[in-house]
Amino acid sequence: MQMNKIKIVISGPRGRMGREAVKLVEETEEYELVAVVDHKYEGMLLNELDGFNASVPIYTDIEKCFFEKSPDVLIDLTTPEIGKLHTKLALKNGVRPVVGTTGFSQADLQEIERLTDEKGIGAIIAPNFALGAILMMKFSKMAATYFQDVEIIELHHDQKLDAPSGTGLKTAELIASVRDEKQQGHPEEKETLSGARGANYQGIHVHSVRLPGLIAHQEVLFGGDGQTLTIRHDSYNRASFMSGVKLAVDSVMKLNVLVYGLENILE
Amino acid sequence: MQMNKIKIVISGPRGRMGREAVKLVEETEEYELVAVVDHKYEGMLLNELDGFNASVPIYTDIEKCFFEKSPDVLIDLTTPEIGKLHTKLALKNGVRPVVGTTGFSQADLQEIERLTDEKGIGAIIAPNFALGAILMMKFSKMAATYFQDVEIIELHHDQKLDAPSGTGLKTAELIASVRDEKQQGHPEEKETLSGARGANYQGIHVHSVRLPGLIAHQEVLFGGDGQTLTIRHDSYNRASFMSGVKLAVDSVMKLNVLVYGLENILE
Amino acid sequence: MQMNKIKIVISGPRGRMGREAVKLVEETEEYELVAVVDHKYEGMLLNELDGFNASVPIYTDIEKCFFEKSPDVLIDLTTPEIGKLHTKLALKNGVRPVVGTTGFSQADLQEIERLTDEKGIGAIIAPNFALGAILMMKFSKMAATYFQDVEIIELHHDQKLDAPSGTGLKTAELIASVRDEKQQGHPEEKETLSGARGANYQGIHVHSVRLPGLIAHQEVLFGGDGQTLTIRHDSYNRASFMSGVKLAVDSVMKLNVLVYGLENILE
Amino acid sequence: MQMNKIKIVISGPRGRMGREAVKLVEETEEYELVAVVDHKYEGMLLNELDGFNASVPIYTDIEKCFFEKSPDVLIDLTTPEIGKLHTKLALKNGVRPVVGTTGFSQADLQEIERLTDEKGIGAIIAPNFALGAILMMKFSKMAATYFQDVEIIELHHDQKLDAPSGTGLKTAELIASVRDEKQQGHPEEKETLSGARGANYQGIHVHSVRLPGLIAHQEVLFGGDGQTLTIRHDSYNRASFMSGVKLAVDSVMKLNVLVYGLENILE
Repeated sequence: MQMNKIKIVISGPRGRMGREAVKLVEETEEYELVAVVDHKYEGMLLNELDGFNASVPIYTDIEKCFFEKSPDVLIDLTTPEIGKLHTKLALKNGVRPVVGTTGFSQADLQEIERLTDEKGIGAIIAPNFALGAILMMKFSKMAATYFQDVEIIELHHDQKLDAPSGTGLKTAELIASVRDEKQQGHPEEKETLSGARGANYQGIHVHSVRLPGLIAHQEVLFGGDGQTLTIRHDSYNRASFMSGVKLAVDSVMKLNVLVYGLENILE
Repeated sequence: MQMNKIKIVISGPRGRMGREAVKLVEETEEYELVAVVDHKYEGMLLNELDGFNASVPIYTDIEKCFFEKSPDVLIDLTTPEIGKLHTKLALKNGVRPVVGTTGFSQADLQEIERLTDEKGIGAIIAPNFALGAILMMKFSKMAATYFQDVEIIELHHDQKLDAPSGTGLKTAELIASVRDEKQQGHPEEKETLSGARGANYQGIHVHSVRLPGLIAHQEVLFGGDGQTLTIRHDSYNRASFMSGVKLAVDSVMKLNVLVYGLENILE
Repeated sequence: MQMNKIKIVISGPRGRMGREAVKLVEETEEYELVAVVDHKYEGMLLNELDGFNASVPIYTDIEKCFFEKSPDVLIDLTTPEIGKLHTKLALKNGVRPVVGTTGFSQADLQEIERLTDEKGIGAIIAPNFALGAILMMKFSKMAATYFQDVEIIELHHDQKLDAPSGTGLKTAELIASVRDEKQQGHPEEKETLSGARGANYQGIHVHSVRLPGLIAHQEVLFGGDGQTLTIRHDSYNRASFMSGVKLAVDSVMKLNVLVYGLENILE
Repeated sequence: MQMNKIKIVISGPRGRMGREAVKLVEETEEYELVAVVDHKYEGMLLNELDGFNASVPIYTDIEKCFFEKSPDVLIDLTTPEIGKLHTKLALKNGVRPVVGTTGFSQADLQEIERLTDEKGIGAIIAPNFALGAILMMKFSKMAATYFQDVEIIELHHDQKLDAPSGTGLKTAELIASVRDEKQQGHPEEKETLSGARGANYQGIHVHSVRLPGLIAHQEVLFGGDGQTLTIRHDSYNRASFMSGVKLAVDSVMKLNVLVYGLENILE
């Protein structure tokens, strides 16, 4: 008996995540890359571009691609605007989307849910594919029930523009969702140097460290009587996203609803 | 309306944990310390002993104590042999036991389960009351489903005799229970200095650090493609056990079965 | 042959550091506690007070104490105002001071230097006796020559009022003294939540974490191309100061000048 | 006024470190790459090879290269056997060697010292160019004077064959050189699982962690009364070696002796 491989189209193959995704699909026994979607190079083969080996066709028209290749799954790693469009087109064409972009409005999500219902197939939208980061957030939310005092330290390379990081803020939101707002630290504490106590998100202090050499790291520290609990994630390179993409592809084949956030498919 | 306080007896009040437990019960609004059980000082009041303020009677006969004081909960912090006996006597007298000792055999546990059934009341046996340590173990077990490669580093003061620590071994067991046995590290790795790769529990390497100054700490490191996830617990003093004791007391009032291990009452 | 013991007077024996110092002197073979100075209890013996064993006299008049007991060394652990006064009186009476208080003005230090010259004996003023913290600061200053990008994270219990900590600020000053002022992070970085990037001391970012459970900890992170170097000190209790006090007592016996800061007697 | 640039030849340009060194020299204002030495491609230009931009000649004969190009410095990143030969040939031709290979015997070093004396120029042999790692070792040796209890944890990717790592062992040797041999941990400690306490180098325990995701990391933990001091180095990629190569090139121009180990040119 031969198992059918999962037929996959990747949209955005030339980006940094896209390249990793192409590699992942090629290296996974049970996956088959059937085409890629790009905004140029129509009619060429992927391996005619620098850095690729797979001889699969490049499409600029995603619906034509779906029609000719009948994929099971679309992995979309483009931009928020295009990601939204592709997600809807995929579902309309019976293709299960695994989407790594952000920026979906409430209305977008409702439309996507309507489409998954109508077609009876799953969809996964994941702002973050790093399994370790997702577990860090999940555990942080769980721990916050027992430890109400928590601070977040996120550490990134010094080319990063915004502080705090998206993951730092997301973690603070998740924690805030399960505890009452609480002003931490001594009620009369004062900063002799402004900013020392970091940013304050509903009483949770968030600290952003930026240094050359660093990549992407975060520590969530919980404190209680006589003890601390620390959950830390270190992301060293983009390969760290690929186990999450794989989990999403495998999961989306079994789903018939929209799942937003990989944390919701982790047990 | 006045809420009834939970009436508590503490057995083993003069030990290090016992003293903390007395303090906890005194400082908790909704608890009332009604007596203590000790192997001596029959008939004296607790505050006649050094370091105590509560003027509650000391009993050497635990059944007499139960009979005269009708407590809701027994907190037992004695020794394995005595802890076993007290647990059973408590249940027989309709008192819910919260027990911090170890060494219960399978037969003991079955008898205790039979008693909780018969009496329709709960019992909690907790080898470890430190909530942070319990969450560390719980999260480690959860993470092991997604990250099969894991090493444990436990660090303690240099007066500790055994290596690895009980918590280190317990963590390794929990992880081993959810993953297939796996030999980690390079298949051809070799130690040029014997012991460098630590102890090996079903492929999980466990490292024990002992230094003056340290108290009780543990780090569980998970590694995957391009990322690591670390869960760390630092225990600085015995106060760290008290939030766990409080959780157990509150929980045992709502239970009608035996729960072994605080991890099983955490959501 | 019998070596003469170093005769020591402790001023401020009832404070937290003072109690540790009494214990240190009692437990050190080559030291002899000859008296203590307090602002009350004149004429009593130290062991008449709660928590002390040494039967040495308590003086309220420090000059009378010096006159009657001829000590080699005064360990002063009082307050800034009294510490200043005692330091000068000790030197005038030929007693070598080891002083743990702060707040000496430039004029004070000059007067003390004049006294050490005049008497030909040493004096040590040490705002911090924790050897590990002093080494952390020393190493940080050394590393800053090679790594110009550095951030400081200091972590303390949540009863601490001021942020950053004194040690955090001192470390930033030491680093700033050996590097050109440098604005770290991306020139266009922006805080989406105010304070995220911490306090800014001449371009060095300092972050203050406050959590129950924590004691006194600091991490200094240096970043460079593809690497980071981290120096961390954890202080778990006041015993951590005593190896520094001992080093100071031993050193002051060999000095004939004023040394300000223990870092200056470490090789 | 125009400063003369330092004229540099790189031997081993196609290796991983060699490629980084070519990049370093090209990007450094005051350096000039005048040629490379390889065991093949004689007569070609470097930019005819994949991944290079510099149009400098490739030599297979290093003496011919020195004769025709009169470089100031040779950066040698080849193999132990070739490195030894090149070092001697460089000195004989008046070129200052900066050598990244190991395996020099005592006799080799003596011959090299004789050559530096004879020619009046410097030479640097550096088994490790990562400045952060070198500082970690230097600080560890310094700290060992004050903290006699120390353990080493080194953490690497799981493709590493040997445990402990070279840096781990080197650190243990340096520490052992400044303290008396000391058996650490409790005298009666026992391993209930063999290997838990790690490798033992003159009483210093060394622990080797191997996980996918990790790169090259080391922590040196010192413990004393009530405190710990930790020095940690994280190496994320090969760029981490280049600041050390630059320091070596700048230093070798001012030296007239052999320096073995970059730690000896750090202040």
